Amino acid sequence: MEIGVGIIGLGTVGGSVYKVLAQNREKIEKEVGQPVKVKKVFDLNQSRYDELSVPEEQRALSAKEVLNRDDISIVVELIGNIEPARSIILESLKSGKSVVTANKELLALHGEELFTVAAESGVDLLFEASVGGGIPIIKPLKESLTGNRVREVMGIVNGTTNYILSRMSEEGCSFSDALKEAQEKGYAEADPSADVEGRDAASKIAILASIAFNSRILSTQVYCEGIRKITPQDIKYAKELGFVIKLLAVGKEENGLIDVRVHPALIPVTHPLASVEKVYNAIYVRGDVVGEVMFFGPGAGGMAAASSVVGDIIEIARNLKFGSLGRIGCTCFESKKVRPIEDLITRYYVLMEVLDRPGVLASIAGEFGKAQVSLASVIQKETFGERAELVFMTHKTIESSFRKALEAIKGLPVVNEVKNVIRVEGEE
Amino acid sequence: MEIGVGIIGLGTVGGSVYKVLAQNREKIEKEVGQPVKVKKVFDLNQSRYDELSVPEEQRALSAKEVLNRDDISIVVELIGNIEPARSIILESLKSGKSVVTANKELLALHGEELFTVAAESGVDLLFEASVGGGIPIIKPLKESLTGNRVREVMGIVNGTTNYILSRMSEEGCSFSDALKEAQEKGYAEADPSADVEGRDAASKIAILASIAFNSRILSTQVYCEGIRKITPQDIKYAKELGFVIKLLAVGKEENGLIDVRVHPALIPVTHPLASVEKVYNAIYVRGDVVGEVMFFGPGAGGMAAASSVVGDIIEIARNLKFGSLGRIGCTCFESKKVRPIEDLITRYYVLMEVLDRPGVLASIAGEFGKAQVSLASVIQKETFGERAELVFMTHKTIESSFRKALEAIKGLPVVNEVKNVIRVEGEE
Repeated sequence: MEIGVGIIGLGTVGGSVYKVLAQNREKIEKEVGQPVKVKKVFDLNQSRYDELSVPEEQRALSAKEVLNRDDISIVVELIGNIEPARSIILESLKSGKSVVTANKELLALHGEELFTVAAESGVDLLFEASVGGGIPIIKPLKESLTGNRVREVMGIVNGTTNYILSRMSEEGCSFSDALKEAQEKGYAEADPSADVEGRDAASKIAILASIAFNSRILSTQVYCEGIRKITPQDIKYAKELGFVIKLLAVGKEENGLIDVRVHPALIPVTHPLASVEKVYNAIYVRGDVVGEVMFFGPGAGGMAAASSVVGDIIEIARNLKFGSLGRIGCTCFESKKVRPIEDLITRYYVLMEVLDRPGVLASIAGEFGKAQVSLASVIQKETFGERAELVFMTHKTIESSFRKALEAIKGLPVVNEVKNVIRVEGEE
Repeated sequence: MEIGVGIIGLGTVGGSVYKVLAQNREKIEKEVGQPVKVKKVFDLNQSRYDELSVPEEQRALSAKEVLNRDDISIVVELIGNIEPARSIILESLKSGKSVVTANKELLALHGEELFTVAAESGVDLLFEASVGGGIPIIKPLKESLTGNRVREVMGIVNGTTNYILSRMSEEGCSFSDALKEAQEKGYAEADPSADVEGRDAASKIAILASIAFNSRILSTQVYCEGIRKITPQDIKYAKELGFVIKLLAVGKEENGLIDVRVHPALIPVTHPLASVEKVYNAIYVRGDVVGEVMFFGPGAGGMAAASSVVGDIIEIARNLKFGSLGRIGCTCFESKKVRPIEDLITRYYVLMEVLDRPGVLASIAGEFGKAQVSLASVIQKETFGERAELVFMTHKTIESSFRKALEAIKGLPVVNEVKNVIRVEGEE
């Protein structure tokens, strides 16, 4: 029996999936034991058909035409965004077709609805490419590591921002120069806000945390800070202290509460994530049985994502062959609360510019003390005439107390500016 | 329906599996949708029963007693070595029970026989823990990455030797001192030969290469060199040249031939494998679609391996639930030849001690030239009275030519000793 595939969306990823299914057709057929064949493709931009040399009989005039085919049992949705992707997926699932998607925004907002319909229809809804591009992470979390209670899933899941921070670290250049370079190289979009403000990473950690902690997390529940405020100075001071700065997507479970957030963080240079450079992604998982594991690879690019999409197609094809569709569905069988960011307990790096006068340090330290924020170290850096820079590292403290201290410190007449505040992650 | 498990072998891994199935029972039941319960365990050393507080009704008096139970559908073999493990697995499979094993030696020698019987009986034979301990690598290769034609699978798959090399690199200590320390810390066995001579890694790369290239490779087909000859000097010179020395297990496919070997190698400090330290393992995979991915984690230890074993148990339990046993069996559907080591094309590091005299370099370079071995760099190092040390890095050359040159060089009267020869891996 031939397994029929329809692809909706022939952009970078969709086009690559189309090519891979042709290029590795023979191998895939042997792995599955049955041929896997593209029956119809659809893209609003019909010039893609020519670019990919799609034969006439595979060209659809509408998404509907793909969904209506009885010989298609797997629909691949690669158009992104919420609508019409959501409707296309729902209609596919309802008509008994399994779906492969890379649509992180949709899954992180409407996952529950989609997985419920998939389960009711007894079909598969797979999404390996939605997080980490070509890195196998969804399947390992849902399968190989299922014997673990996951304590922590933490990753560099946005290639654009990792490229920018890597360049800032290597070259000492500013955020805006690094962003410009990333745009020139095609690593950042013309409007980079979803990447640099952390919203892309927020969708991804919502998906990872939902699986890791067996409880649905929406992207809107993820605390989110971007990297626009990071300066070469921060990176330099962090390095002196033995840290690198990365945009981290963090999910942790502590006492039944889920801590889920995206923000720049200082991580120790010895942490496995510290050496992940450029557009590479990596996801670090800590489980109660396995300890620490990490998955590393290309987080973006059409071919990388196609590797994951084709892996999902093969998975469904195997289920079709064995009559085991729906074998692994949604695993959000718990209902855990998200811990507000104010309750986070962590260490902080604080860079401030103060007046270079006697007693300044004492008054700042006094404010930290009043709020019960204990200091691990303080370094006075370069002095510019009347002004000095102070770098504080706190001990672990609760964020609400830290914020209180910070507000008081900002009000001190000797403090010119609190230049940056960055959380610390990945320490023992 | 309850899913019954029998465990044969309650050593470090078996004992951990027993504990994890109890400790995470509730989570596993929710993931599978059915309870997974240990029915019987067996170990020759009956004191293990007390150590693990195994209740009377679970204690078997023989392996046979486990195999004979009708309520056991998954047999976990964790005794290691060839016999009686082979017979136990064969009998289990023939009686329709699925098997989970971590037995790399057995799989790398008798894999074909075992997988044939598993397929005939329509059951699963899973072995995630056989390579890389707790790192998910078998399943990602057989599933997530199946859309790729794998070009290369390369890893640090032996924690003992990686610990030794890490310590030699950090402390500048000798192989024997580092080995002694590893033994004291429980990272090396009293008889460390299977680890330090590379045979453990050879079994593992045989398994990985068989999956990656869809063609059965036996451990006896793996060219194998250990790390006993590596000195702190080699590590120091490598560092100066921008490399680290690791015991690598390498599998590559080129022109339909499989290159599979275990030996110490110089890898560039920038390679993802270079920063894998201590007892950690990592497996790097290069596919034609995904590019480079790497899997990192604990390569040894009872709990790490138990994470993989329990993952496999859950996989089989899901197949039992969906009637899809045998869903993914042996994928060695090709029959590719192994390339002899003499045909390897690579770069070499050569350290030799020579007489410190005019014309020495010319005569050595002359011998390399005669054998068509081109030199990339040569460094003259510390001179001790009459003697000097020369470090050569060759360009890519065929191993047979290189060996010819080396034999001729060893015969030169000005050459006291060729101290070490190490291949270079992981360059572009």
